[in-house]
Amino acid sequence: MISFKTEIPIDKVKDLFCNDIGYQTPKIDTRAAIFKNGKILLVHETNGTWSLPGGWCDVDISVEENTIKEVKEEAGLDVIVKRVIAVQDREKHNLPIYAYKVCKIFMQCEVIGGEFTTNIETIGFDYFGIDELPKLAEEKNNREQIEMCFKAMQSDTWEALFD
Amino acid sequence: MISFKTEIPIDKVKDLFCNDIGYQTPKIDTRAAIFKNGKILLVHETNGTWSLPGGWCDVDISVEENTIKEVKEEAGLDVIVKRVIAVQDREKHNLPIYAYKVCKIFMQCEVIGGEFTTNIETIGFDYFGIDELPKLAEEKNNREQIEMCFKAMQSDTWEALFD
Repeated sequence: MISFKTEIPIDKVKDLFCNDIGYQTPKIDTRAAIFKNGKILLVHETNGTWSLPGGWCDVDISVEENTIKEVKEEAGLDVIVKRVIAVQDREKHNLPIYAYKVCKIFMQCEVIGGEFTTNIETIGFDYFGIDELPKLAEEKNNREQIEMCFKAMQSDTWEALFD
Repeated sequence: MISFKTEIPIDKVKDLFCNDIGYQTPKIDTRAAIFKNGKILLVHETNGTWSLPGGWCDVDISVEENTIKEVKEEAGLDVIVKRVIAVQDREKHNLPIYAYKVCKIFMQCEVIGGEFTTNIETIGFDYFGIDELPKLAEEKNNREQIEMCFKAMQSDTWEALFD
């Protein structure tokens, strides 16, 4: 079924899941939404596109801890997590569709310190208003997802969205 | 590190992760909180303990879809998901600690139909007030987690909790 949906050969699919099918669940990706003066922080990837700091959740840390870790790695900033914005099914939002399901968890964060340091993933970061978004890494986050983060930021209380 | 923390032999840990370490993320478990007349639905497991309907999120469906599927399988009921109650790091709440991290996602649901049917996992379900909880399957959900679900149910708006 996965092979059919993604056009990846069946043998490759078997290899990807490594016979671990009994307990295999969707993979988790975390994304941090950080605001300053009504603008959102995006990191500048080495390929030129921009995205919310984030990535695969390490297998030995929690979603909250991974959110903090990814912001530190990609933007150099120390944050605390304030809110779950959404628990999304990646393939309902981002292309291309991957062979495995991805659960994207968006967290609103607040900066408490730190500064950008050279790293292998990003070349810097900047803050953008909703009407001045640069070229996004759309396989990670698109305009609709950034708008969702703005809505959360503008809300006193927020019920996490989900798919 | 995982071997040290869980006392599982290092070779067994390697086997569990099946050399898939590059993209391995915590596994996802979903739990549904369903209320009727101020009481919470628990399913009666075949081993005699009780738990919120739920389980491993199938790799090819979303968190929302898995929540619905597990309720149907274990309680026979059709539900719609109304709210994310929490995104928890299992090992901060439930024993025993597993070799792999588990992200437990609690969802508040509402029944729209269905009835219990015989299945291999459960022998029935019932509704319980917070002061009349039966013997819980504590590796899946403990009293603190059930109380959290009651608090969500009693709240007009709810910011999802997280670890």
